[in-house]
Amino acid sequence: MPQLSALSVEDLRSYHSQIRQRYDAFAGRGVKLNLTRGKPSPAQLDLSNALLSLPGAADYMSGTIDTRNYGELVGLPELRAVLAPVFGVTPDRLIVGENASLSLMHDSVAFSMLKGNCDSERPWSKEARIAFLCPVPGYDRHFSICQEFGIEMIPVPMNEDGPDMDVVEKLVAADPQIRGMWCVPKYSNPTGAVYSNATIERLAKMKTAARDFRLFWDNAYAVHHLTPERIEIANIDEACIKHGNPNRAFIYGSTSKVTFAGAGVGVFGGSKDNVAWYLKRIEKRTIGGDKVNQLRHLRLLKNSDGIAALMDRHRVILAPKFDKVLDTLDEHLGNSGVARWTRPKGGYFISLDVLDGCARHVVKLAKEAGVELTPAGATHPLGNDPHDRTIRIAPSFPDLPEVAQAAEGVVLAVLLAATEKLLANVGK
Amino acid sequence: MPQLSALSVEDLRSYHSQIRQRYDAFAGRGVKLNLTRGKPSPAQLDLSNALLSLPGAADYMSGTIDTRNYGELVGLPELRAVLAPVFGVTPDRLIVGENASLSLMHDSVAFSMLKGNCDSERPWSKEARIAFLCPVPGYDRHFSICQEFGIEMIPVPMNEDGPDMDVVEKLVAADPQIRGMWCVPKYSNPTGAVYSNATIERLAKMKTAARDFRLFWDNAYAVHHLTPERIEIANIDEACIKHGNPNRAFIYGSTSKVTFAGAGVGVFGGSKDNVAWYLKRIEKRTIGGDKVNQLRHLRLLKNSDGIAALMDRHRVILAPKFDKVLDTLDEHLGNSGVARWTRPKGGYFISLDVLDGCARHVVKLAKEAGVELTPAGATHPLGNDPHDRTIRIAPSFPDLPEVAQAAEGVVLAVLLAATEKLLANVGK
Repeated sequence: MPQLSALSVEDLRSYHSQIRQRYDAFAGRGVKLNLTRGKPSPAQLDLSNALLSLPGAADYMSGTIDTRNYGELVGLPELRAVLAPVFGVTPDRLIVGENASLSLMHDSVAFSMLKGNCDSERPWSKEARIAFLCPVPGYDRHFSICQEFGIEMIPVPMNEDGPDMDVVEKLVAADPQIRGMWCVPKYSNPTGAVYSNATIERLAKMKTAARDFRLFWDNAYAVHHLTPERIEIANIDEACIKHGNPNRAFIYGSTSKVTFAGAGVGVFGGSKDNVAWYLKRIEKRTIGGDKVNQLRHLRLLKNSDGIAALMDRHRVILAPKFDKVLDTLDEHLGNSGVARWTRPKGGYFISLDVLDGCARHVVKLAKEAGVELTPAGATHPLGNDPHDRTIRIAPSFPDLPEVAQAAEGVVLAVLLAATEKLLANVGK
Repeated sequence: MPQLSALSVEDLRSYHSQIRQRYDAFAGRGVKLNLTRGKPSPAQLDLSNALLSLPGAADYMSGTIDTRNYGELVGLPELRAVLAPVFGVTPDRLIVGENASLSLMHDSVAFSMLKGNCDSERPWSKEARIAFLCPVPGYDRHFSICQEFGIEMIPVPMNEDGPDMDVVEKLVAADPQIRGMWCVPKYSNPTGAVYSNATIERLAKMKTAARDFRLFWDNAYAVHHLTPERIEIANIDEACIKHGNPNRAFIYGSTSKVTFAGAGVGVFGGSKDNVAWYLKRIEKRTIGGDKVNQLRHLRLLKNSDGIAALMDRHRVILAPKFDKVLDTLDEHLGNSGVARWTRPKGGYFISLDVLDGCARHVVKLAKEAGVELTPAGATHPLGNDPHDRTIRIAPSFPDLPEVAQAAEGVVLAVLLAATEKLLANVGK
């Protein structure tokens, strides 16, 4: 593996034609592989197939609650008790609802636009401008919510220990129109970064010019470890309370990547006032969530140990796929100097940075060779990666031999784009 | 049963003390009965207990769709094909989503506020004023949505064949800020009225000053017959198309009172443009609904015949309860001249009108005697029944002996309030 920028023009040309041949050969195989989305594989979904016949013929009561009927806006108390510790709040401050957390996040923003949150002076839609901080690279669906509602997105750099807090603190202190910030604090989408205790402390403590500023704390990968090390992060709820900002965090999570991606349960947690505010909004929208599905989850997961055991089985399926991608990247791009990538200890993604100005080209080349990747730019607000360098790799869905093939396609696309770029520079 | 207003003062006093005694005796029984909400009874829920173990261990595919995974924003095609005819639209123009229709209605209004609908010039929240027509008596949860978003509610009288169309036509033609109208076209909540073909024709045809006016067509009781006569109403979608207003109706329905009240599926249907608009909004909110629950419903309901057969079994349970209430009202209030009520052929409610100014008092008296009723006024916008006379009776949840007792409590409360009122008038 040569360091490409150190090659002579002649060697680079020869290397390029070699890569071109390998790429063409790969494309000639006619594979059809998809690394676009963080979808669990069928083998992972199989782990929860018991849900398909749960809760079972005569099982529909949870305490005194008939789960089949209307009611229980806040969700089944028994399931709230199981899920609350996972998300670091007390059960009385956790709502179980919806089939995923994206809806809860969307609605939190929509409700804030329409009504303001419990600390707002007026609905956000009445403000001339609302802005959110968006650590980049980040999650495209977060950005889509902001875009939908005309919320300005201010990118802030994402480091290995979380967002660049010097930048964050300066921005939120100065600008009263910054009302929110997207955070995936553990095994972040897409870099896998884990917020350090110091980062979480600073987020909880920082002075914000807006009184109704909120951290949209999307703890999507709370228990989604890829190594035996079960990383724990600092408790944002406790940190916010400690620093006198108890309402600062809206906390989200779900079982989408614990049980069934399309048929899980979501959670919203936070301060008493935040939860009361949220309930006040959703009581206009629903008489209660699907409590039978909540009961199903209670029967399957049982308790924290049940969740941990299930997540271990996910890891057995997922970790080899991540290893395969990382090994392939190491082997073919290791010293190339044309790419760097993250080594996540959990979550669903690897973030791959290629030479500036090459990400779109790489994604295009990969696609033409039969490997579909998340569109370049998707990790940035409005799809605009100013360096055109970040690519998100989602290895969860295909099976292991397919992941191996897809990874090969990706490295060939990276090398082809890089050599072309370097040769073009030579030509200048 | 005397006609109370025809009684001499003396006879009225004697009748009053008789009723007072009977009321006190009833109250002394210490019953605890609830006629507040249109909740299915456990016996009705039992009819769908197969759902508790469906779709079954190895059954998760619907065609080529793995229902366990993400995706299919629009819902399972197989279930859409089954439900579309029930709601009078083609399957390609029906979305299956959420666990009930209230959420779909709420979101349609919220999205219109935030973004406008597909015919709006701007978001409704940018208008100085938005108004909805609200046939009264009507459904409190419709009114709550309007109240939540600051939408002015204009009551229009509800007749036996639907809303008073002379009033409706005049209002919508004159006022461009009227953007919506709540309609429960079949077995209306709470009167049980069925919109006539002529009413539906006029709603589809009428000139509206607002280009983006919508009928919020809540066909909640599409198959919820209480008699062997399965009433069919005119097809609003076809009528709107015929009159050149294809986008006029947002159509809603659910299986909440077909299968499980808390764990059913909702539907949104309408024109191609309306559906495209709605999907564009919810794609920011969700990656897809709970398709396993959709599959569960497909397996249980199978087809239109399956739905009809299940609804027949509901009728066997429900009809005697309605009969019991109606018989009790007939027997004790028949010629009293102090009450009148509806005789619904479907749906979940009986609407009882008492003497003007007495509804709140009746509800209070009933509650003190152990029978909880929907709060008086709930059938009107902002809980304000200007005549204080309409009471909604929901006999579905208690069992038959309880319904009998509760009905007795209600008539005693009505008679007691009426005699007190008449005696007070005498005193003046």
